[in-house]
Amino acid sequence: MGTWPYCIFADRGQNMDTAQEERLVYLDHAAATPIAREVLDAMTPFFCESFYNPSSPYAPARAVRARLEDARGRLGHTIGSRGGNVTLTAGATEANNLAFAAVDGHVVTDAIEHESVLACAALHDATVVGVDAVGCVDPGAVRDALRPTTELVSIELANGEVGTLQPIRQIAQIVADERMRRLESGNQRPLLFHTDASQAAGSVSINVSTLGVDLMTLSAAKIYGPKQVGLLWHADGIALRPLVRGGGQEANIRSGTENVAGAVGFATALELAEGLRASEARRLRGLSALLRKEISRHIDDAVFSGPTRDKGRLPGLVHVSVPGTDARRLVIGLERRGVLVGTGSACAASRMRISHVLRAIGLDDALAQGSLRLTMGRSTTEEDVCYAVECLEECLREQRKFSA
Amino acid sequence: MGTWPYCIFADRGQNMDTAQEERLVYLDHAAATPIAREVLDAMTPFFCESFYNPSSPYAPARAVRARLEDARGRLGHTIGSRGGNVTLTAGATEANNLAFAAVDGHVVTDAIEHESVLACAALHDATVVGVDAVGCVDPGAVRDALRPTTELVSIELANGEVGTLQPIRQIAQIVADERMRRLESGNQRPLLFHTDASQAAGSVSINVSTLGVDLMTLSAAKIYGPKQVGLLWHADGIALRPLVRGGGQEANIRSGTENVAGAVGFATALELAEGLRASEARRLRGLSALLRKEISRHIDDAVFSGPTRDKGRLPGLVHVSVPGTDARRLVIGLERRGVLVGTGSACAASRMRISHVLRAIGLDDALAQGSLRLTMGRSTTEEDVCYAVECLEECLREQRKFSA
Repeated sequence: MGTWPYCIFADRGQNMDTAQEERLVYLDHAAATPIAREVLDAMTPFFCESFYNPSSPYAPARAVRARLEDARGRLGHTIGSRGGNVTLTAGATEANNLAFAAVDGHVVTDAIEHESVLACAALHDATVVGVDAVGCVDPGAVRDALRPTTELVSIELANGEVGTLQPIRQIAQIVADERMRRLESGNQRPLLFHTDASQAAGSVSINVSTLGVDLMTLSAAKIYGPKQVGLLWHADGIALRPLVRGGGQEANIRSGTENVAGAVGFATALELAEGLRASEARRLRGLSALLRKEISRHIDDAVFSGPTRDKGRLPGLVHVSVPGTDARRLVIGLERRGVLVGTGSACAASRMRISHVLRAIGLDDALAQGSLRLTMGRSTTEEDVCYAVECLEECLREQRKFSA
Repeated sequence: MGTWPYCIFADRGQNMDTAQEERLVYLDHAAATPIAREVLDAMTPFFCESFYNPSSPYAPARAVRARLEDARGRLGHTIGSRGGNVTLTAGATEANNLAFAAVDGHVVTDAIEHESVLACAALHDATVVGVDAVGCVDPGAVRDALRPTTELVSIELANGEVGTLQPIRQIAQIVADERMRRLESGNQRPLLFHTDASQAAGSVSINVSTLGVDLMTLSAAKIYGPKQVGLLWHADGIALRPLVRGGGQEANIRSGTENVAGAVGFATALELAEGLRASEARRLRGLSALLRKEISRHIDDAVFSGPTRDKGRLPGLVHVSVPGTDARRLVIGLERRGVLVGTGSACAASRMRISHVLRAIGLDDALAQGSLRLTMGRSTTEEDVCYAVECLEECLREQRKFSA
């Protein structure tokens, strides 16, 4: 096991109380991560003891409020900002929705964004730029898509399905240039640059100044924090607009009694992820290289998708397709051997259709249907990787025998 | 202590790691409740072990999905419905917003609703009916406010500040009559009846059939469950509209990877609250009677607000005003003695202005400024009540000495 074991028992869901001691290799970290021990420890005092409503007037409640604001400050600090610019949400999906709610005009995004971004873009006059065969957005295409009425550009930092890292800084420069042009021409319409960094956090830098973004989405659930906890960061001077109204929490942008346990857990998870980032990225790159090598060695016709150079991709993600196979059957076969992998984006996975990401990179339908996404995490070891490939080979042999 | 002690150490927030062994009497259960032990136990497996994304395709994730749907079914069952009609949200505020998002036309609500209801009503063509001196909505006023264009009536089941139980069944009948009239006159505009039952759950029946409502809001955080977890129940045939779009979770009404721990905790909390309801309501009525009696005995000029008969009010809530005092100073004085109470509605409390509820019942401003809301819960005992009144008397003596 890796540095931080969390999954030593297989839980096959038949009876969740009787854990069976079996080999379990979880390779779907892009879909969900367990809460890290340190994170849960940080959350625990707020469940039954410091449970007070942060808006209540007495000192123990004000102390809870202080811990909430401290968590917000830590979140801001970790991404290179102040806490005042952090709006806590119930996850990345809501944060993405909040970013789009800030504007009325034309928006520019790309074809392999998370469904929440694409759904919000569809509510606007939108230009959806394509991507190349490895999922990369061409900054020039973003520049060409800009109109005098464009108010938002939204490009994710990393794609969760094929692992592409987008050229965010170059796009930020294009947005800055367009702003300068508007200033000179007297066009006072604001232009914002948003990035969904949910899948990138813990793997690449999410410093908002370095990235040059105006709005950034993060999710706690992808970095070993609690589910339904996320944030939208905004630069100074940007006025967000509420989707949910009421008691005026989160600077009136997002009402509802705050989940202090969640906020403190999120801050702890993000600090932990940033602290481990360099070493984990290195370790995961090594594991990915091993995984690709082993797959190539055992499965002649395997096709990898996404960028080919380490610099351009998430360190822990391998997307592989095997022609003539059915990913759903592979998932079941692997699962019988204790290996858990995803097919396409987990959010849409239950619908079992070819993902919009694979369509957009132009992957052949037959190949797409035989696609697996393997995402490694803190607990993944070399043995896990070798075992997974062994199982994959077995499953393929089985599947091909039946189809022969 | 009561049947279920949860607060044996005072945590004064100066240093949250060094709990001081002091008397702590928490009388602000309407603002927040600690997570019950049984609830936390039910949530715990989903933090670090069964952490899978419910949309992932393998069996352990499908088992998590099954537990989510089981929790939804339990929630539905407890309120007399099917799980399919339960939309999980990040709390009551979002649920109220979702209810209002279902309609475009005229809405009718009352002046002492939660701020989220009033804020949502303000986005519509709205009639806000007044309440009487004890906070009660006149069903006749609701009837008179209905127009041919009315699409939603939203009246809370119980008010969280003065404890008034509203005549929901009578209003439901008025709504049903109006629907019948529309049917006869060929007006095909739908008319929905929504109730925010957040403050009522655990104290009065929240059976949707008995109440005769079409939409109902509940919060886990008010019934010893997790914060930022709530639901909107809807009757068959009602089409909700999303506020947050994306992966299509919650039947496409509310996207975002689900908080399974929260859902399971919510279901456990609601079942527990319903199981304890009769006995707790009886016990809390007794404690409230004792509290009112002791206050009257020690504080000559105390004025109680809200309904005078037990049948018309929340069992554990006492709203009391002392002329010529400043509630904020009382809160601080009581807090120094380990007694935690609220001033007005906690959601708005940090703003320290006279609450819209006290305005609406016509309470004199001077009286309103000296108003405390004391809300008892599972841990409250007779000794707590007597101690609180003793402290209140001391605080008043102190305050009056300084002002004399």
